[in-house]
Amino acid sequence: MKVGVLGAGQLGRMLALAGYPLGLRFCFLDPAAGSPASALAEHVVAPWGDAQALTQLAECDVVTFEFENVPVETVEMLATRTQVCPGAKALAVARDRLHEKTAFQELGIPTAKFAAVDDAAGLASALSEVGLPAVLKTRCFGYDGKGQHVIRSAADADAAWRALGGQPLLLEAFVTFSRELSLIAVRSRSGDTRFYPLVENEHREGILHLSRAPARNLDPAQQTRAEEHARRLLERLSYVGVLTLELFEVGGTLFANEIAPRVHNSGHWTIEGAETSQFENHLRAVCGLPLGSASARGPTAMLNFVGHMPPAARVLGIAGAHLHDYGKLPRARRKLGHVTLCGASPADLEAKIAEALALLEP
Amino acid sequence: MKVGVLGAGQLGRMLALAGYPLGLRFCFLDPAAGSPASALAEHVVAPWGDAQALTQLAECDVVTFEFENVPVETVEMLATRTQVCPGAKALAVARDRLHEKTAFQELGIPTAKFAAVDDAAGLASALSEVGLPAVLKTRCFGYDGKGQHVIRSAADADAAWRALGGQPLLLEAFVTFSRELSLIAVRSRSGDTRFYPLVENEHREGILHLSRAPARNLDPAQQTRAEEHARRLLERLSYVGVLTLELFEVGGTLFANEIAPRVHNSGHWTIEGAETSQFENHLRAVCGLPLGSASARGPTAMLNFVGHMPPAARVLGIAGAHLHDYGKLPRARRKLGHVTLCGASPADLEAKIAEALALLEP
Repeated sequence: MKVGVLGAGQLGRMLALAGYPLGLRFCFLDPAAGSPASALAEHVVAPWGDAQALTQLAECDVVTFEFENVPVETVEMLATRTQVCPGAKALAVARDRLHEKTAFQELGIPTAKFAAVDDAAGLASALSEVGLPAVLKTRCFGYDGKGQHVIRSAADADAAWRALGGQPLLLEAFVTFSRELSLIAVRSRSGDTRFYPLVENEHREGILHLSRAPARNLDPAQQTRAEEHARRLLERLSYVGVLTLELFEVGGTLFANEIAPRVHNSGHWTIEGAETSQFENHLRAVCGLPLGSASARGPTAMLNFVGHMPPAARVLGIAGAHLHDYGKLPRARRKLGHVTLCGASPADLEAKIAEALALLEP
Repeated sequence: MKVGVLGAGQLGRMLALAGYPLGLRFCFLDPAAGSPASALAEHVVAPWGDAQALTQLAECDVVTFEFENVPVETVEMLATRTQVCPGAKALAVARDRLHEKTAFQELGIPTAKFAAVDDAAGLASALSEVGLPAVLKTRCFGYDGKGQHVIRSAADADAAWRALGGQPLLLEAFVTFSRELSLIAVRSRSGDTRFYPLVENEHREGILHLSRAPARNLDPAQQTRAEEHARRLLERLSYVGVLTLELFEVGGTLFANEIAPRVHNSGHWTIEGAETSQFENHLRAVCGLPLGSASARGPTAMLNFVGHMPPAARVLGIAGAHLHDYGKLPRARRKLGHVTLCGASPADLEAKIAEALALLEP
């Protein structure tokens, strides 16, 4: 079975690494030559809309994506010629914050107050509706904290509008949360679902820094609630594959922040930390295979290497450390790799996290 | 860092899958086009002695092998131009049963009585020295039970000579063992060692069928003894990389049967069943990186798929099953893939083994 993948970054690379043992073959499409997946799979280097490239992709048994910001027309064209999972509908909702938030609301999933902003007048009325503080965000193409502006005062509103105005925007109430969590969920072609334990995420400068899984002091009722939210989304979207739900913990309530229609950085710990990795379960789902267990094997953490890779020998010198080097050239704010840390106990894991954090010191 | 690998079969494929996360790149040499590793790495299709191909391999930072029966000249030539691990010395011992047995004897490692056989007269004197029953084996190039003949009577001796005569041979006393075990050992460039728990192996028609790890009812003293044997071999051979020691359990004694100077089929369970896989630890060793833990995560089994692959959906329908399809064309007696089974307890593992064995029924 051959799997076409839109995007050939590290997510694609890890999909291929998980898929070869299943006997799958891969064809990646990505305009950037030398992308991480290209070291180990067929990589068509072409613009997203290139007709010949899309013909090659359409020859795959199924097409999926590791990068959701591809042109809608690309996905729609492929969907007329082969199976695309998750489908265009899921993609359309996930890539537009307004559709996403509206879906949360319609499904009864708690989320921050929000309002669409299409022009400067719209911003003023949205601010009076949502209140301050608030966050102005682009509806599409935001990632790693890009395309966001916090508004605490009228002056901030002007600055935010100057920075982001002229494209479809969304204003959201600023949520003061105790922590950020994410749920990696997967749904098979036959509608079977699996949910990984909630992950606790820390960001630095808008980029995921450290994930702990399962989240510390995890209340089983909270896990159940998160799974109920995700199940409703998966079913509403007739979703096939891995879906990531990002959540804010506010007191005892979970506020849905956004969804990613793909494998996710906060799920990288599953490669060593869960019975079946998010990458393998995504492929099992889109290829019509039975899903694997999403249970955690033990306390696990994932630390991102951003902008700079520490020497492999130092990373591997930590007991229970598993290195993932994406083979990318270093650049500021670029995710170059990560390390997974497996602990014998929560305390042992914290000691390993401390060791790994020391690698980031200059 | 770029790793050259002689041989591009499933062992090479699994080396590459373990090595990409470490940031390694690979170049394989194998005369057979379409070999399993070729789907995911650079593969030079050329005879072992091809000058241009060897120049390509010599450009790698280190060269290793997943197939030890390459011409000695190939290895020696490469060793003059780059680092080869394990070295030509280890290879020379491991690929010749006489050298191997002699090394066991010199190191005080129990092994079956043996005698070299160079001609028909030599067979007669070897038989009188070793006694009956015995096994006549080719000194080199034997694998999966090929090149072996059991001798229980004078008539068998004639048949064995007709089948194997004309090449360097070895006669060994036939060992009646209670079970076959193997030890996967690894030694780093700095001389650090790690040993996986003993594996219990069952063969069918001379081909590995089922491995259980750790071996059932494993006596810690036996594990220690096996590690002592392996450590002596590793040190004698100044070995760098994974070495597999095959053993027969005879009463309370472990008889060394043979060594393989490479990752081994009986170590495939380590991908999911151990903290660090044999493939990753081999690469860590040959690349000068610190070794990872060789501890088992729990009771694990590995079942080979020989000649026929069951449907992926059926394999993955078993809870805790991990499929490895090597992407090979089916052929009688050919290893096409394997499944790793992870059990919550020894009893749970046996139930899963029974489920997996049912997949092999016609």
